[in-house]
Amino acid sequence: MQIAIQGELGSFSHEAALRMANGLEPGNSGSEDIQIVPCFHSPDVFRLVVEGTVDAAVIPIENSLAGPVAEHFDLLLKEEVAIESESQLRIRHNLIGLPSATLARIKRVSSHPVALAQCRRFLESHPEILAVPFYDTAGSVKTVIEKGELSAAAIASRQAADHYGAHILAADIEDNAANFTRFFLVRRADLVRPDREADKVSLAFTVENRPGTLVEALRIFAVEGTNLTKIESRPVQGRPWQYVFYVDYQMATAASADTILAALRRSCSMVKELGRYRSAPMNFDNQTN
Amino acid sequence: MQIAIQGELGSFSHEAALRMANGLEPGNSGSEDIQIVPCFHSPDVFRLVVEGTVDAAVIPIENSLAGPVAEHFDLLLKEEVAIESESQLRIRHNLIGLPSATLARIKRVSSHPVALAQCRRFLESHPEILAVPFYDTAGSVKTVIEKGELSAAAIASRQAADHYGAHILAADIEDNAANFTRFFLVRRADLVRPDREADKVSLAFTVENRPGTLVEALRIFAVEGTNLTKIESRPVQGRPWQYVFYVDYQMATAASADTILAALRRSCSMVKELGRYRSAPMNFDNQTN
Repeated sequence: MQIAIQGELGSFSHEAALRMANGLEPGNSGSEDIQIVPCFHSPDVFRLVVEGTVDAAVIPIENSLAGPVAEHFDLLLKEEVAIESESQLRIRHNLIGLPSATLARIKRVSSHPVALAQCRRFLESHPEILAVPFYDTAGSVKTVIEKGELSAAAIASRQAADHYGAHILAADIEDNAANFTRFFLVRRADLVRPDREADKVSLAFTVENRPGTLVEALRIFAVEGTNLTKIESRPVQGRPWQYVFYVDYQMATAASADTILAALRRSCSMVKELGRYRSAPMNFDNQTN
Repeated sequence: MQIAIQGELGSFSHEAALRMANGLEPGNSGSEDIQIVPCFHSPDVFRLVVEGTVDAAVIPIENSLAGPVAEHFDLLLKEEVAIESESQLRIRHNLIGLPSATLARIKRVSSHPVALAQCRRFLESHPEILAVPFYDTAGSVKTVIEKGELSAAAIASRQAADHYGAHILAADIEDNAANFTRFFLVRRADLVRPDREADKVSLAFTVENRPGTLVEALRIFAVEGTNLTKIESRPVQGRPWQYVFYVDYQMATAASADTILAALRRSCSMVKELGRYRSAPMNFDNQTN
């Protein structure tokens, strides 16, 4: 099974992809032969899925502290893909250096800006270490290893340290332990395998640009007694202050989800169901071994 | 009148602040003596307002292409400030160099990543120019002038070129003309001057973590026949998959806004009205002279 991810090998997406493809997450069956295909840009990840070059992609959709990955919402809407399953990873950050490095000698740490921001307390307690933004967490480990500087470190997952043969100098340095990222496994829309235990629906809609239309659409969820768990909005390109709304809700039955979809289609200018899948539990214990 | 902004002098926030303080935007009265106080970090902007060091702050809240400025939503909720007025600036990007620079000799352009992304077509038609991310649009102009390199350029507003005595090498290079940013003028909550012509309300709320509570809150807007114009969500720090919802709606009367506020207070675990203000028209003609 070939799975595309955005970012370098050893990233949190890599870890989520392995867990999902290995059947460690609900709603996923195991696969013996897993190949991860890293891509620099997210549009390429989706393109590989749509073209059929890979079987699936695993993408982060939101972090419980930093919020949504906006570009992935946009791409879920734009591309002919659907969500097959969901997983949640506990994000643990580690200070990672060369195998022979020591914490006392680190002068510079690079990582993705979000990771740096999530380790503020550790960085404040080490004012001798300069934080430098980098494009990717796992990529920062790769670069530390390639450059071979004993004074340089990265912030990334344990998986990244293992992957590049690097050393963890300080573990679990994130400020807030309630740090989770939701991932979706997406396939080409016509290849998604339905999950009979699906209990959650993600969909996107736009409303016509006249007064009251958003409330009218939301009323549909209210009338059906739906448990909305999430609303997100993204701008419509080229139409100032018009939005695509992204909604997650708990599905009572497939029939009720069909009713909601039909009602939205009557009321909204655009509706796309992004997937019906099983809601993932929080994995508090991933990355600990 | 002292107004704090995030970013360097010559930024889009600077321009919005001058337009609002000069009474060029509805709901603002003119001020003779305007002093702009630039801050590197947004939390400092809000701190200066709350401490009373400045009279007001002008902050971007969302761009019609890039979406919300998440940090400013968080700070509006956290700090004891309120929105007094709104304005909308048409964002025009320009390639800016030294007074003696020419477009043909430019090899490198720096700007904020969002500005670079919004000028993709121009950059694609000039493959000889390397794009380099920088922390601030106006700051990139400042740096070009300080370094004095004829091959270096920045992407920023006409205001920034004027402010730093730089030269516009190519005007209006943004991909999409439907590029607007909404700004708020915020004051300390106890110093906000009510606008009797206010027709728009921004508020934030959280709901209890049990099924159906979000739909229950949204039903309040539906029952009142409200014209919701916007819903945004932001994660609650430390409580995975709980959200603060930010809503804008058209206010029928002050009494109806009071009714909605009271109903939300009964239903929600937290409600904060962020401001009642006059909705701003789109300024298609700003920055053209």
